[in-house]
Amino acid sequence: MNNMNDINDKRIRLAHGSGGKLSHDLVTGVMLPAFANAALNELHDGARINMPGVKLAFTTDSYVVKPLFFAGGNIGKLAVCGTVNDLAMCGADPHYLSAGFIIEEGFPVADLIRIVESMQAAASEAGVAIVTGDTKVVEKGAVDGIYINTAGIGAVIDGTGISPTRVRPGQDIILSGPVGNHAVAIMALRHGLVLPQTVTSDCAPLNGLVKELLSAVPDVAVLRDPTRGGLATTLNEIAQQAAVGILVEEAAIPVQPEVAAACDILGFDPLYLANEGKMIIFSQPQASERLLAILKGHKYGKEAGIIGKVTDSPAGQVGLRTLIGGIRLLDMPVADQLPRIC
Amino acid sequence: MNNMNDINDKRIRLAHGSGGKLSHDLVTGVMLPAFANAALNELHDGARINMPGVKLAFTTDSYVVKPLFFAGGNIGKLAVCGTVNDLAMCGADPHYLSAGFIIEEGFPVADLIRIVESMQAAASEAGVAIVTGDTKVVEKGAVDGIYINTAGIGAVIDGTGISPTRVRPGQDIILSGPVGNHAVAIMALRHGLVLPQTVTSDCAPLNGLVKELLSAVPDVAVLRDPTRGGLATTLNEIAQQAAVGILVEEAAIPVQPEVAAACDILGFDPLYLANEGKMIIFSQPQASERLLAILKGHKYGKEAGIIGKVTDSPAGQVGLRTLIGGIRLLDMPVADQLPRIC
Repeated sequence: MNNMNDINDKRIRLAHGSGGKLSHDLVTGVMLPAFANAALNELHDGARINMPGVKLAFTTDSYVVKPLFFAGGNIGKLAVCGTVNDLAMCGADPHYLSAGFIIEEGFPVADLIRIVESMQAAASEAGVAIVTGDTKVVEKGAVDGIYINTAGIGAVIDGTGISPTRVRPGQDIILSGPVGNHAVAIMALRHGLVLPQTVTSDCAPLNGLVKELLSAVPDVAVLRDPTRGGLATTLNEIAQQAAVGILVEEAAIPVQPEVAAACDILGFDPLYLANEGKMIIFSQPQASERLLAILKGHKYGKEAGIIGKVTDSPAGQVGLRTLIGGIRLLDMPVADQLPRIC
Repeated sequence: MNNMNDINDKRIRLAHGSGGKLSHDLVTGVMLPAFANAALNELHDGARINMPGVKLAFTTDSYVVKPLFFAGGNIGKLAVCGTVNDLAMCGADPHYLSAGFIIEEGFPVADLIRIVESMQAAASEAGVAIVTGDTKVVEKGAVDGIYINTAGIGAVIDGTGISPTRVRPGQDIILSGPVGNHAVAIMALRHGLVLPQTVTSDCAPLNGLVKELLSAVPDVAVLRDPTRGGLATTLNEIAQQAAVGILVEEAAIPVQPEVAAACDILGFDPLYLANEGKMIIFSQPQASERLLAILKGHKYGKEAGIIGKVTDSPAGQVGLRTLIGGIRLLDMPVADQLPRIC
């Protein structure tokens, strides 16, 4: 029961849903002991499962973002892109989504229509169909507006085998573009901070780009989208799962200047902020040029670059070479800085 | 946009999630126009979808039942059984589930552990694995305790083709057991009504029983579990989708006497109450004896019986021959009597 054992008589805290250490404790202390099976134990963004005759990927996420509408998207677009991206990060081609709505009594129908139309637009772009759904309405106050769950099914792309167990010292770490935009777009709204119109959520379906990358380089070791907890948390998870060290270069990690400025004002570190249209790729260095060419030719990867390397040690740790040349530990956060970011 | 068009400027009501007419308006007025595709348009409990080499069923449901723990189950058991049953009602053998949790800050960890342990017990009984999941924690007041979404994948059983389009006049309608138990177990708790211990929710996974039935009689026309809205609503949906009449016999519909008594006290009609471990079968009369023998030999079908017939007319309507011999219209409810019953 791990760390949760100590708190069997305790209560769930916001941080248990943050993507940080406490989230990890909740999953390993409560969920895994109950549900343990080979597919779940991998703790990837989705499960790879076998059905007679086909290798599938299967994933789910609930979306509770606040506010519901923001620059660059809304909860509906997020719910489709997030699940599409989780499938893509498993090396799968997404085919079908489900959509489960929990709606508060009194919610404006016009807002619901905007949300479902955004879902369909994102689904069309991603080439997936929303084939099954469910709607529950709860009394006023029993939910905050609307929450959406999506689950998704994809076909694992032949010849791929994405897994942290395939991460090796010497591999390059590629980031597909600037970090922090999604979280800053949300947080600016919450804090009444007026940002330039150039700051929008990066929310986007990455499956088309992933398919191109995996067609060219099927033996990519890991794909991961740095959502809750941001780049730093995602790198820590991979370093721990693969028992390798990671060293990234601060100078190589793009951050839009307006996003960096907003982070200064709001007191956030962009490396820990959620993204909804970015990915990290771990691959052999000889493949990097090919991957970068594909990324830079795609609208969702124009600013891609190599941000660091996998190292031998210290295993499980992520180092950041700062702009002034020192190396600091990029730790796993105990809790995300920002609840309800997705 | 159908009936929802008139209310674009309006607000979601509890009844939009009830399983009754307003739910139907929400689905046909908002969801279908946005998401329309062949699988979704069938409006079955789950979607049948094709992946290269395999015919799958895919379904989702969110569970918001209140209270969370009740005689015969809890929200976790319900979340597994409900989705397993939706797959079974598509003529599929359930294999994998996802689980998405939305938890209120301050929720007792001990309760969460009870819930996930019940989920695993139900999954074990049903022979399914919970292979992927997600947990969101929202601030106090932003959700009422815990809501759970499950999605499920199953393999469509060879030779079956469950569809309301296969319903024909002359077919028998079989019900697998007494109705109303789940809703009465919940409502008694809400109203502080102390019932005999024999009144428990019927919450159970029906996939094992369904597999036996479909192995013996693959050409069953329709399977459906009468959940939200109860037997009456489910029969109305089938009558409308198949454009047939339905006549059921009140004397043939089993209701546990303690449930009937509780309904009298609470003012409910058991034919409109949610069940979580019952099913209705539409089949050719020559198969009925075989189906009933299998049902009666299974722990979840002991009190099964033929409750009525499909008729030519009036199309889309359900008649009930009452105990005193008259026939009354069993109408589709505008709203369920009971919000948050599942």
